[in-house]
Amino acid sequence: MYIDLNCDLGESYGLFQVGSDEEILRLISSANIACGLHAGDFSVMAHTVDLALARDVAIGAHPGLPDLQGFGRRWIPYTAQEIYELVLYQIGALSAFVTAREARLNHVKPHGALYNKAAVDREVAKAVVRAVRDFSPELKLFGLSGSVLLEEAQAAGLRTVSEVFADRQYLADGTLVPRTHPQATLHSSAEIATRLERMLQKGSVLSLDGHEVPLKAETVCLHGDNPSAVTHAQELRKSLNEHGILVCSP
Amino acid sequence: MYIDLNCDLGESYGLFQVGSDEEILRLISSANIACGLHAGDFSVMAHTVDLALARDVAIGAHPGLPDLQGFGRRWIPYTAQEIYELVLYQIGALSAFVTAREARLNHVKPHGALYNKAAVDREVAKAVVRAVRDFSPELKLFGLSGSVLLEEAQAAGLRTVSEVFADRQYLADGTLVPRTHPQATLHSSAEIATRLERMLQKGSVLSLDGHEVPLKAETVCLHGDNPSAVTHAQELRKSLNEHGILVCSP
Amino acid sequence: MYIDLNCDLGESYGLFQVGSDEEILRLISSANIACGLHAGDFSVMAHTVDLALARDVAIGAHPGLPDLQGFGRRWIPYTAQEIYELVLYQIGALSAFVTAREARLNHVKPHGALYNKAAVDREVAKAVVRAVRDFSPELKLFGLSGSVLLEEAQAAGLRTVSEVFADRQYLADGTLVPRTHPQATLHSSAEIATRLERMLQKGSVLSLDGHEVPLKAETVCLHGDNPSAVTHAQELRKSLNEHGILVCSP
Amino acid sequence: MYIDLNCDLGESYGLFQVGSDEEILRLISSANIACGLHAGDFSVMAHTVDLALARDVAIGAHPGLPDLQGFGRRWIPYTAQEIYELVLYQIGALSAFVTAREARLNHVKPHGALYNKAAVDREVAKAVVRAVRDFSPELKLFGLSGSVLLEEAQAAGLRTVSEVFADRQYLADGTLVPRTHPQATLHSSAEIATRLERMLQKGSVLSLDGHEVPLKAETVCLHGDNPSAVTHAQELRKSLNEHGILVCSP
Repeated sequence: MYIDLNCDLGESYGLFQVGSDEEILRLISSANIACGLHAGDFSVMAHTVDLALARDVAIGAHPGLPDLQGFGRRWIPYTAQEIYELVLYQIGALSAFVTAREARLNHVKPHGALYNKAAVDREVAKAVVRAVRDFSPELKLFGLSGSVLLEEAQAAGLRTVSEVFADRQYLADGTLVPRTHPQATLHSSAEIATRLERMLQKGSVLSLDGHEVPLKAETVCLHGDNPSAVTHAQELRKSLNEHGILVCSP
Repeated sequence: MYIDLNCDLGESYGLFQVGSDEEILRLISSANIACGLHAGDFSVMAHTVDLALARDVAIGAHPGLPDLQGFGRRWIPYTAQEIYELVLYQIGALSAFVTAREARLNHVKPHGALYNKAAVDREVAKAVVRAVRDFSPELKLFGLSGSVLLEEAQAAGLRTVSEVFADRQYLADGTLVPRTHPQATLHSSAEIATRLERMLQKGSVLSLDGHEVPLKAETVCLHGDNPSAVTHAQELRKSLNEHGILVCSP
Repeated sequence: MYIDLNCDLGESYGLFQVGSDEEILRLISSANIACGLHAGDFSVMAHTVDLALARDVAIGAHPGLPDLQGFGRRWIPYTAQEIYELVLYQIGALSAFVTAREARLNHVKPHGALYNKAAVDREVAKAVVRAVRDFSPELKLFGLSGSVLLEEAQAAGLRTVSEVFADRQYLADGTLVPRTHPQATLHSSAEIATRLERMLQKGSVLSLDGHEVPLKAETVCLHGDNPSAVTHAQELRKSLNEHGILVCSP
Repeated sequence: MYIDLNCDLGESYGLFQVGSDEEILRLISSANIACGLHAGDFSVMAHTVDLALARDVAIGAHPGLPDLQGFGRRWIPYTAQEIYELVLYQIGALSAFVTAREARLNHVKPHGALYNKAAVDREVAKAVVRAVRDFSPELKLFGLSGSVLLEEAQAAGLRTVSEVFADRQYLADGTLVPRTHPQATLHSSAEIATRLERMLQKGSVLSLDGHEVPLKAETVCLHGDNPSAVTHAQELRKSLNEHGILVCSP
């Protein structure tokens, strides 16, 4: 059994520090690096790319809505054309730092409200897919397992990577329980590991209200922006090891 | 005799309209497109790249200091490393729109305070050159004729394009008379054309205080952001034609 | 018959020029000055306040959503508490320039998407009203005639000023036909003036689909951001004069 | 003996968390609250004002240069007029939240690069003073002891509060040793307390290079943005108590 562990990194901005990127990079196989519009800036991006290369972690662009104050977590009604443009802009900006190190951009994973919207809204999904493919058809697209985004990506000939949230509860329709819900998040690493193993073996997850929801677990999202993130990641890796699950980029 | 005519384009931002890009593009051979930090945004960039491709005008990235309110015209004391990063970021962002149209980025020209600083400050010049070369050694670098920037670019093996300002007065040291000076700018197209012809023939210009200043005229900067810009450009092209000077990108 | 003519002013940002504020100020009785988040900046605000005082035009704060690229015209899902805070912030910022000139802030008019949302959404309306009243119960609140915003303002004891859009078409429910609709806007000054006179006399307007919609015309919004704005305003004032309608602030 | 303890607060931005404002507020007598241009946003400002009022701590506006990425720590060459305008804007914005709680703004303390520039540059100092006085001559102005800023404030009839940095080293000219210097900062609370006591008793401090520099210690700046800030502040208060120094706002 194989799984990719991905994490959102490079979310600091100027002197505003977020996350423990260096420690997290020892534990993951794919890094989604913020591109300066919802988090990150050109210095943070350059630094994070260097850190990821030093740890041999696959580098992805992590484009979000241009909303630093909201951290890209609230939906702003951009048109599909604007979504295309703002995703293209961000992939290009991050890619420059990777190119400058003679390395290769591996994937794109939309952030926050853009991730959630593209998972269910076909026009937004198409715009994201078109931006990724127009930049390079070699790029993999990370998205929620079973989402409209991955359907559109496959239709456009992009290689997709299905993401599951091992520490988040699902609704019966395969979307995530909103963070505002008290039971949105699992906190015990043991629970999370068992949950992931079941996903890998059964190809499904039990929703909060007890439905068997089919999904494809190719990558798991770790959270890097809370104090216990590193400890959680370490425990998860240990547990995965015990269950014979190998961590590697897709 | 050959000359490239370049102009800063894509300087609108959201609903804030600047310049007459469509008309200007009929008259120039190189477009320097703002990259979203001192002017322009992702939508303006996408649109301007499309306009330039439709007119077969060479496309350049026009990175500036991140200062929308100041339009990149005031110097902000970024470190050399930050200059490297912010230039790389902007080249990458613009390049994405060119790549998406299966076209090729031709050059980079720094904007405003960055242009002026890089012309005289070796550390800043090196940072700009390093960003351009790290992104692609194929890119041409536009800079003030005789500037430290072009010296550093040549030392790094980049192809340079020497810019002259046919409508601006020079100081004896080869830098431009600041815009705040009452005689900073020439307004008559006839004067400008004659001035340019002399530059091309003699390889020099007379400074405001009467010195013969050597320069290399490979490209001339037109201004696109005032109401008479299009008329001026038309008159200049007509006059160049009369003097047997051919307009083409370098 | 009396009417107030109001116009959104101070919408320039840095070197991005919008509108003909000086000319418009000769023709209106109330100025709604942008507060730096959707348009305007601290320099533009200071300058516009000075211009308005010189023309003895009543000064209002014109708070909008923090979205410079979108000019405050797209709705961003701020919470009611955030709306309260961002309106309070902007009233305070503009008020400082008025206070510094020993003058008095007269009114508040929300801008763009905030104006439209507050007209129909009671939670947003309450948040705006609370911000205005908490800053000063002496401030008048401008809003769409018949809107939820004015209902809430009256309930909170604020003095309201009912706005009509003499150059915009109405829907049967009293809201404006969206700008994207081909018939959204009237362009002839004669038509606009006649329309306004009818509003003043009948206390109602005919909607695009032929319904008599009751409204209260205390102030009329002029548009300052298009090339013919000044001419339109001049023609409207002339026409109002011919119909014996006096222009003065409420 | 009396001393005011002040601290920069409200420096978070959106989801970017800075400092331990709640804990620090139990230990200080004056809060300098960021105003949204170099740090803070409208929500953070509203919340911080509420926290300060709950602890009965004197509230000051803490205007900085509009440079979120640089946290207001690098000098940007604004004109004196722009400095006047951006300070006025920020005082007004913060003041709105204080007014809304029927409280009173106590003081203004410039931030970072603006603080340092205003300490030595007479034109910038005059601009800051003019903004404070034009907003309200009742406001106290906090500034570096012996600085040009306080000279200008006194000349304009403002009440000044002389600040000393008990944990920073001084140069012989009374300015602070730059933060980049390895010995810029004292880390032991005991050292800091003793240093402050000496300042209060002698009216002077020993510079890094051994000169007796006269100063007036009316307020001391605590740092709130590092992990040990709260512990340091607690130790300092304890030590001040032991030396019979009473903490209160000026």
